Amino acid sequence: MLRFFTAGESHGKGIFAYLEGVPANFEIDFDFINSELARRQRGYGRGGRMKIERDKVEFLSGVRLGKTLGSPILMAVWNRDYKNWEEIMKPEKGELPKEKVVSRPRPGHADLPGVLKYGFDDVRNVLERSSARETAGRVAAGALCKDILRRLGIEIGSFVLSIGSVKVPREMIEGKELKELFKLAEESEVRIPVKDKEVEERFKEEIDWARKKGESLGGTFLVFATGIPVGLGSHTQWDKRLDGRIAQGIMSIQAIKGVEIGLGFKGAELPGSKVHDEIFYNSEKGFYRLTNRAGGIEGGITNGEPIIVKAAMKPIPTLYRPLRSVDIRTKEPFEASVERSDVCAVPAAAVVGEAMVAITLLGALLERYPADDFKRLRELFP
Amino acid sequence: MLRFFTAGESHGKGIFAYLEGVPANFEIDFDFINSELARRQRGYGRGGRMKIERDKVEFLSGVRLGKTLGSPILMAVWNRDYKNWEEIMKPEKGELPKEKVVSRPRPGHADLPGVLKYGFDDVRNVLERSSARETAGRVAAGALCKDILRRLGIEIGSFVLSIGSVKVPREMIEGKELKELFKLAEESEVRIPVKDKEVEERFKEEIDWARKKGESLGGTFLVFATGIPVGLGSHTQWDKRLDGRIAQGIMSIQAIKGVEIGLGFKGAELPGSKVHDEIFYNSEKGFYRLTNRAGGIEGGITNGEPIIVKAAMKPIPTLYRPLRSVDIRTKEPFEASVERSDVCAVPAAAVVGEAMVAITLLGALLERYPADDFKRLRELFP
Amino acid sequence: MLRFFTAGESHGKGIFAYLEGVPANFEIDFDFINSELARRQRGYGRGGRMKIERDKVEFLSGVRLGKTLGSPILMAVWNRDYKNWEEIMKPEKGELPKEKVVSRPRPGHADLPGVLKYGFDDVRNVLERSSARETAGRVAAGALCKDILRRLGIEIGSFVLSIGSVKVPREMIEGKELKELFKLAEESEVRIPVKDKEVEERFKEEIDWARKKGESLGGTFLVFATGIPVGLGSHTQWDKRLDGRIAQGIMSIQAIKGVEIGLGFKGAELPGSKVHDEIFYNSEKGFYRLTNRAGGIEGGITNGEPIIVKAAMKPIPTLYRPLRSVDIRTKEPFEASVERSDVCAVPAAAVVGEAMVAITLLGALLERYPADDFKRLRELFP
Amino acid sequence: MLRFFTAGESHGKGIFAYLEGVPANFEIDFDFINSELARRQRGYGRGGRMKIERDKVEFLSGVRLGKTLGSPILMAVWNRDYKNWEEIMKPEKGELPKEKVVSRPRPGHADLPGVLKYGFDDVRNVLERSSARETAGRVAAGALCKDILRRLGIEIGSFVLSIGSVKVPREMIEGKELKELFKLAEESEVRIPVKDKEVEERFKEEIDWARKKGESLGGTFLVFATGIPVGLGSHTQWDKRLDGRIAQGIMSIQAIKGVEIGLGFKGAELPGSKVHDEIFYNSEKGFYRLTNRAGGIEGGITNGEPIIVKAAMKPIPTLYRPLRSVDIRTKEPFEASVERSDVCAVPAAAVVGEAMVAITLLGALLERYPADDFKRLRELFP
Repeated sequence: MLRFFTAGESHGKGIFAYLEGVPANFEIDFDFINSELARRQRGYGRGGRMKIERDKVEFLSGVRLGKTLGSPILMAVWNRDYKNWEEIMKPEKGELPKEKVVSRPRPGHADLPGVLKYGFDDVRNVLERSSARETAGRVAAGALCKDILRRLGIEIGSFVLSIGSVKVPREMIEGKELKELFKLAEESEVRIPVKDKEVEERFKEEIDWARKKGESLGGTFLVFATGIPVGLGSHTQWDKRLDGRIAQGIMSIQAIKGVEIGLGFKGAELPGSKVHDEIFYNSEKGFYRLTNRAGGIEGGITNGEPIIVKAAMKPIPTLYRPLRSVDIRTKEPFEASVERSDVCAVPAAAVVGEAMVAITLLGALLERYPADDFKRLRELFP
Repeated sequence: MLRFFTAGESHGKGIFAYLEGVPANFEIDFDFINSELARRQRGYGRGGRMKIERDKVEFLSGVRLGKTLGSPILMAVWNRDYKNWEEIMKPEKGELPKEKVVSRPRPGHADLPGVLKYGFDDVRNVLERSSARETAGRVAAGALCKDILRRLGIEIGSFVLSIGSVKVPREMIEGKELKELFKLAEESEVRIPVKDKEVEERFKEEIDWARKKGESLGGTFLVFATGIPVGLGSHTQWDKRLDGRIAQGIMSIQAIKGVEIGLGFKGAELPGSKVHDEIFYNSEKGFYRLTNRAGGIEGGITNGEPIIVKAAMKPIPTLYRPLRSVDIRTKEPFEASVERSDVCAVPAAAVVGEAMVAITLLGALLERYPADDFKRLRELFP
Repeated sequence: MLRFFTAGESHGKGIFAYLEGVPANFEIDFDFINSELARRQRGYGRGGRMKIERDKVEFLSGVRLGKTLGSPILMAVWNRDYKNWEEIMKPEKGELPKEKVVSRPRPGHADLPGVLKYGFDDVRNVLERSSARETAGRVAAGALCKDILRRLGIEIGSFVLSIGSVKVPREMIEGKELKELFKLAEESEVRIPVKDKEVEERFKEEIDWARKKGESLGGTFLVFATGIPVGLGSHTQWDKRLDGRIAQGIMSIQAIKGVEIGLGFKGAELPGSKVHDEIFYNSEKGFYRLTNRAGGIEGGITNGEPIIVKAAMKPIPTLYRPLRSVDIRTKEPFEASVERSDVCAVPAAAVVGEAMVAITLLGALLERYPADDFKRLRELFP
Repeated sequence: MLRFFTAGESHGKGIFAYLEGVPANFEIDFDFINSELARRQRGYGRGGRMKIERDKVEFLSGVRLGKTLGSPILMAVWNRDYKNWEEIMKPEKGELPKEKVVSRPRPGHADLPGVLKYGFDDVRNVLERSSARETAGRVAAGALCKDILRRLGIEIGSFVLSIGSVKVPREMIEGKELKELFKLAEESEVRIPVKDKEVEERFKEEIDWARKKGESLGGTFLVFATGIPVGLGSHTQWDKRLDGRIAQGIMSIQAIKGVEIGLGFKGAELPGSKVHDEIFYNSEKGFYRLTNRAGGIEGGITNGEPIIVKAAMKPIPTLYRPLRSVDIRTKEPFEASVERSDVCAVPAAAVVGEAMVAITLLGALLERYPADDFKRLRELFP
């Protein structure tokens, strides 16, 4: 019922998010959405472009006098640098000088499979859309969904668990409140959930090392959602299981190569008695658990515990250190090397992860609760 | 375009698979489908039920004189034991004696969130559908898809990488052909891809240990697909990315809590130069790679290399060793314990993983190639 | 959210309906479903087969002890005559004697476009699925939906308006209650909403004339739904408009070539002041209308007035009187002629129309009201 | 596979069309799209606004240097008058003076069911989205689809058959080429397919009469598509039938209350021998027909003959002549009357009809033929 798509090319006019099925009468918090866009752009190790850009959302439809109309919402994050790219990216007919045609596909990107799939002779026709710049649209739409969920008592956050070979020490996290960890991460330049100069330094050193070596780095992050009502998602059909939908949303983020829910791969090593969450009851809380190894989802349905998703991001494929590749026109080999770019985008990807979880959760929630009018939704929401 | 659903309860009349969009004029290999169903039922550590059942597929629609009609295919895997369950599971009206009503939800299952979501007072109303028995339908449909892909040169296989704390030694796999590993796995009782008595013994001992302790075990497995054409999936929209779709399919399998593509979480630790697959070209092969760390997918699109998916399965939640839970009727605590059951279903889950990859891949393939008539598809297929 | 598909070939094992998204805890009325299947088979002018068949539904999944489980419902209407067709229709491999291969496409059927689309050399591969026998599955699923709606106060019915050139006199209908007309139609052999021997006789004579001449007849019918809450469907996107969805459902019925909502084509001739339904209010009824020219839908949304849909059915394309056609194998012309068949199926098509309206309405209703549990739905339903 | 949505409010920033799944490498004809937008705005009997507006399309994404990228296409038709509406329509927070709140729902519009559905107290929240201004987005997307189809030899056109009680004399159309009729309609102020001053005058007089009386008028129109390949759509599932999809697309157009394919309601009156299209063959043409009563679709599949769709439009619900209604705030009755507006929009609706047929047809075509790359599509297209 909630339909979400993005449109737009990285250096085109802008990135756009189409979001349909949002209840009417929800009051938009514009600052919140813009602050989410800013969170996507921050983080130690980002390239220069991130500093130039200060993304802002503009609503093109679906919102009037601050409130949703129930009609399709179209959001624009305009490219402030479009003027400089117009000649190359304009929709109008035009011929490019040969030297501006990109014929060199970069390993690890959609570049080569993309040109072969679509029959292109300019790699730019692929890379402009496959670029992670597209996630600005995801974050804009996700921010709106997060805000709606927040008003229903559902909080979504994330933090970084590792960058390259440096990991947040497990003992510094265990037993801590998710929201507390999130707060700490928001104050960290690398979005790690600890207030510890030494640890933070180790993360920065890893990034500095990579930059010096002409390398890039990936990492892992955790997304959580608290305040979840029981009963989102369903065990009744494979494509209604919430874990499957979350996995699709997360894996669809650029450069993500792994997704876990709850214990994930760790749980595969342990015996059953160490993995399942025993069930308790008291008259105040109703049913509850003392553990949350399932990550809040059993049988594809939320069980009321926080949702816990972890993701693995591969290093950014654009590095200074050359990778061998082949020119698609001449079929000559060359060495792919890029001068200036992000070294590490894990903190940003975590923010995108929040967005995809928010969109997926709101979708599932609107399948269970009345979805036309936010006032009515809030009344009936438990 | 390919629509796939299952229906049926574990102890109901049967498990059914609905598969729509399969090209016409494809010749069904019934024995192959049945042998796939048998593969799902094998494996060291399975409980007694698996030995009783010998699943066979019956086509109820969509196939005539051995060939597909282009019309919806409905497959039945009948429950041979239905007679004994009729009183409890029949669709007709009936009252159950109180002692046959299940009021005790098992931790780790859909049981508790399911009854709360749907307003049930009998846990059986959930567990009958959330049961992994449903995967018989996935394997039946997946077998048909696998067979179609096989006739186009695409081979899908799987093997177990670990059960509980026991892992296949990495050095016994590295550098080996996927198909070779698959062959070995098919001869192993625990579906591991090595011919080594000692290693096999270690796996069996882990399972025996678990059974003795009243425990259950999870594990990890790898699914691969070779012979993949470039260009399945697309970078252009989040829900068209093949990696996202595969992740959904795999994560939707009962008890799966983690999915990786290619290097997965490992790749998050390495620098960029060790993660991306350099591109080469010669006139015979066209573009090719010497590595496949991406697991065959870049930017959500197949790049021609084998697809590599890994999954983590949690231990079966039904164990002999008691887990604490609460009766939904009386709200009294009890200890959930089950006498006879599977201890480990990882080898079976790997077969289900193959099925979900096959269904997802065929779907993506039919979006790129003409899909009405298998003869025409084969002609135009590269 | 409500997913509905059918499967099955006319002379295959049976016709099957897959219905997913039905709320749990709804008590099935088996007799009602069977009586709906019987209504589909009645009607003056039906061929012999209709008299042989006495369709009954069997639930294969999704229902336990008389109540829905929230899981996918699979319904079977078995072919009682399958034994006699097994050799020709079985899924197992087999070769047909040449004389049993159908190479003669009938004008007005899917026969010729179907074989060309799917690359068949046996027309039976098309006609078995395009046959109106498939509507047994629609009626079975529709009956369940009707029953759910009925328990929420929504009644769906239909009656015949014309067969061939004979029409029900407008003045015999105007001003009458829809439910009253429906009751009369249920007692008429041609399902006309009048108790008038003379008129009924004129309809039968038309059918008798057609049979004698080797002709077939079409006609028009009206489907209505009363007790509709305001707010089903939406004006916000083209594919959410309820009128569009109803039109698709009705036009997708075999042999239907026209659909109207409310005044339909008649309204195109009148000036605005004669077409729109003025709005009134009193404290008891709330907003109401004194007319219902809109057929209960304004701007794609229900307005609380009865939904009125009319449909035009072309004559059955299988007639005794020969139509010229061409053998697909030999390319020789021949004259298509069929010995025994229905002459007129309009009364049956009206029943199928009810089913499609019921399925469409329930789908729209479950998008507006909570859909997991029928008890909760009934509580919240206005 | 082809996904199409619109966004935008009538007096908001603009109307937007989202179109996804268009093959890459198609060269956009901007002038053609703008000329289609202009066709939507022409026509005798349009109000003043149509004369002010000169809609132009701007591509926001999916097109580069004149060619499609395979990525989502976002088109904007900006509202040139937005400045004057900003205070009332801006997305930013704001309070309206009471007199600018619309509390008077107009009969025949989405107004009343819309406010009740979404819980609004300002009717403008509904009418801005339900307005036929939205069809600018349909026509923009439809124009692109039409252009693609045109390059594959498929031509789509339309003409008016009646306005109010005035009809184009049947004998002036019968036996004429569709394209010829279309050409004549393009030269007529009321888009009728005849070059006859007297007839044209009668149409204009009807409109003039209505304007004088404070009335509005509906009418009927015909949309056709020629050059259609056999095999679009499918008989295998109800929602794959092309006739059903076309019916949904047409019925979803604002104010449309009836749809016919081929003979439509007329065919319901005739005996079978007068309705079905006999099949002929010669080695040059292959299979062909001498009649096209089916409107190009048999069993939900195109048969190679032109597609013929007719539609009935009700009179515009906004009239000068007052209709009784009730204020939603005060519950007081009032008389709804509008000073200046269109009297008749049938010629424009016919253009929208072309758009919806084009979008539906291209969607069906891309399910049968390879859809990634327009060059490849053109090669393989018959």
